[in-house]
Amino acid sequence: MDDDTPPFFYVMRYASEAEGDVIDMVSGNPDWEPPEALREGLREYAGAEPDEFQYPPSVGLDELREEIAQRRGVDISQVVITNGAGEANHLAMAGGLEAMDGNEIIAADPVYPYYDGRISLLGAEKTLVAVDENGHLDAETVREHASEETAVIVVNSPNNPMGVTYDGETIEGLVDVAEEYDALLVSDEVYDHFDYSGKFTSALSVDSPNYVVTNAFSKSMAITGWRVGYAIFPHPDSPSPYGGLVDRARTRHMLTNVAISRPAQTAVLRALRETGPEYYEASREMLEERIDRFTDALDAAGAEYTKPEGAFYVMARFPEMPGTMANIEKLIDEAGVAGMPGDAFGDSRADWMRFALVTPRAEEAAQRLDEYFE
Amino acid sequence: MDDDTPPFFYVMRYASEAEGDVIDMVSGNPDWEPPEALREGLREYAGAEPDEFQYPPSVGLDELREEIAQRRGVDISQVVITNGAGEANHLAMAGGLEAMDGNEIIAADPVYPYYDGRISLLGAEKTLVAVDENGHLDAETVREHASEETAVIVVNSPNNPMGVTYDGETIEGLVDVAEEYDALLVSDEVYDHFDYSGKFTSALSVDSPNYVVTNAFSKSMAITGWRVGYAIFPHPDSPSPYGGLVDRARTRHMLTNVAISRPAQTAVLRALRETGPEYYEASREMLEERIDRFTDALDAAGAEYTKPEGAFYVMARFPEMPGTMANIEKLIDEAGVAGMPGDAFGDSRADWMRFALVTPRAEEAAQRLDEYFE
Repeated sequence: MDDDTPPFFYVMRYASEAEGDVIDMVSGNPDWEPPEALREGLREYAGAEPDEFQYPPSVGLDELREEIAQRRGVDISQVVITNGAGEANHLAMAGGLEAMDGNEIIAADPVYPYYDGRISLLGAEKTLVAVDENGHLDAETVREHASEETAVIVVNSPNNPMGVTYDGETIEGLVDVAEEYDALLVSDEVYDHFDYSGKFTSALSVDSPNYVVTNAFSKSMAITGWRVGYAIFPHPDSPSPYGGLVDRARTRHMLTNVAISRPAQTAVLRALRETGPEYYEASREMLEERIDRFTDALDAAGAEYTKPEGAFYVMARFPEMPGTMANIEKLIDEAGVAGMPGDAFGDSRADWMRFALVTPRAEEAAQRLDEYFE
Repeated sequence: MDDDTPPFFYVMRYASEAEGDVIDMVSGNPDWEPPEALREGLREYAGAEPDEFQYPPSVGLDELREEIAQRRGVDISQVVITNGAGEANHLAMAGGLEAMDGNEIIAADPVYPYYDGRISLLGAEKTLVAVDENGHLDAETVREHASEETAVIVVNSPNNPMGVTYDGETIEGLVDVAEEYDALLVSDEVYDHFDYSGKFTSALSVDSPNYVVTNAFSKSMAITGWRVGYAIFPHPDSPSPYGGLVDRARTRHMLTNVAISRPAQTAVLRALRETGPEYYEASREMLEERIDRFTDALDAAGAEYTKPEGAFYVMARFPEMPGTMANIEKLIDEAGVAGMPGDAFGDSRADWMRFALVTPRAEEAAQRLDEYFE
């Protein structure tokens, strides 16, 4: 997802042109098998009648929306199927900016680069709130930065790039801030299946019309390239302007994309129905083990880091090796490990580096770092 | 594609709730088989390695872009793969409006409803130019309406809803107007495989930086629900602001959609490579035959109509039965044929009706109309 933004592209190319063997810890692409039912669903769809190859409803296949609504405990009218979490976030942020008073969007620093880019695309005023020393976004700090100008607050938990999970108190606090300033909280929960802390709390647990939850099957089913996500908007019966957000999103979605690719929607529906919790459990356990090995190596290397509580990223700071692009290149050339410089994500962790643990060679990378910093 | 906009939705529902059997001539969904290589491509992809399920390049799969660039005689840097022609038109219109001076978008009347909606979404000033008595858009009439305020002119040839094909002279004339007013012509050529007149001329034949060509595989491969389209922008080396349009579109595309669904892109690539001209020829011939039968029935019914030269729509006016919603309902109830009221497409053909010929029952519908108007 990040691979097309300039610093990501630069590091990927530098790593691919390096002389030695380099372990890619740059991109956030799952490296494990998708659910078997997903492959079966796509095979079956390949033999469908021609009418099943035509426009699905713009808002998404009825059965997929119904399945999501039931699982998430919301009304089907609140669900819009999107081109991955990317479009879900775009619709929520664009609609919130339009419908709420004020022209400011608040996000955490370090920030997921797509939020940053989208804020610029939408012509909003950007306020980044630095995370605390544990990598968490503190709701009270957000409150200090918020004002009547605030239209949208966008957060990601479990988080990219910090790897932390916000607890229920934080999420409630953030909804409170949104309510206080008549703003919209966009809660991007795309890593919800990858919480190792037990703390993950969806914004859906809070009774308020002041948030939109976004999600996708990209990470949980290891299909970032298939582009099936969704947004859950406030119920249409919610007071104005919140109740109107879903219609606003449906219109924007229709006029931008018309509809979402039907082969992918159809296969995801089948996988959603037929895949048991053991599938998600297995990838979570595998990642947790990788994280343990990798953070052991960071300990051995004397690095400072935020222990991942969720997602599959680690941010770390090595002694006497700040996370500049020059040092990223040095680590590629001399240790054979490619990470991302911290300043690709903002200012607050600019001298850190980010490593994505979605490679079967994560343990080997840990050993290389161990030896390099020995 | 139109099925979600209010008047289309209303007619579809009215028809489905009618007592008798109704032939649907409302929606523009192809009713024939897709290329066999498309089904094979999807089946093969279902068994691919997990890394082929991850993010493709945001701008589209390299091989698909290369294949399109070669076929269309353009540089690969000009090609952006989009979520169908819908997103291609959105990117071209939004980018043109941003980059060109002025805030006006010109389109034909009758207008394809998505252009109309997009003009509103983008906050542009809308100018609809009525087609001539033959259903054609006259470049000189467009010139009379154009001004320094004009940023974008969007046209569709072969055309929905008129069923006409603009000739080379018209396309050149429209590019001329765009050049004269430093505007951008968006030439939507999604029906290019369905030209019965031999007159179809792509804007790509004109040497100018003042246009974007949009297209998709939705109609030509009978896969409107798969959402694979493309836009061809002016070469990046073109003078400013035209040379910058492709980068602008890539950024907007990335921040809106991240990337396009990879199962669909992969299968379309295979179908594009392996499907010979006889496939496209067969659907064109079948449609041409349907059109002949249908217009014979219109002749017998004493209707006025524009003889289709392309696409698969017919606009017609029956004697003493203007194309109001009430008469559309009457035709559903009394003749068992569902069309669309002309005013769903603007003012200039408001008392006409539009019929989509993408149903195997087109001939039966013709007979029903014959008998009804006897």
